[in-house]
Amino acid sequence: MSANRLDDLRKEVDQVNLRLLDLINRRGELIKQIGDIKTEQGINVFDPIREREMLDLILKNHEGPFEYSTIEHLFKEIFKAAKELIEEDQLNALLV
Amino acid sequence: MSANRLDDLRKEVDQVNLRLLDLINRRGELIKQIGDIKTEQGINVFDPIREREMLDLILKNHEGPFEYSTIEHLFKEIFKAAKELIEEDQLNALLV
Repeated sequence: MSANRLDDLRKEVDQVNLRLLDLINRRGELIKQIGDIKTEQGINVFDPIREREMLDLILKNHEGPFEYSTIEHLFKEIFKAAKELIEEDQLNALLV
Repeated sequence: MSANRLDDLRKEVDQVNLRLLDLINRRGELIKQIGDIKTEQGINVFDPIREREMLDLILKNHEGPFEYSTIEHLFKEIFKAAKELIEEDQLNALLV
């Protein structure tokens, strides 16, 4: 009985993982598009105020079970990955 | 024109952030349930083989724009957060 329940829960975790993967990549595509527009307009691509606003909105909507500090840490890692993606993009543009 | 486009993209990023938040917390709830079943059955809660299997499935489904190493890093952080959640749960159970 609980072996099946364990299997079901694991399948659900796998589905959640793949949806997280999709969203992380979707987020990367959006951030790249934002970076392109900002570069075209000569605006600084990295905006710490916007990053703080995003985090505030996330934390305002957070209800657990994770600690607020854990959610903040995870999203900072996700933001950092997106920054690296844009930097890589800009480097490639310079090398062309 | 691009100011509106920038606003639209930012709104979409905010929506993606909140969906990520939901899924990360949903994942936490599932992992807690799995931890409870394993504790009941006296099975070791942490299973590095299962963790590797989850990562392999994620990486098999990954298509970019992020590097595979970035995706692996982000998911390892998500897994670590879930581990800490279970450890906290177990500590609280011991203290009751």
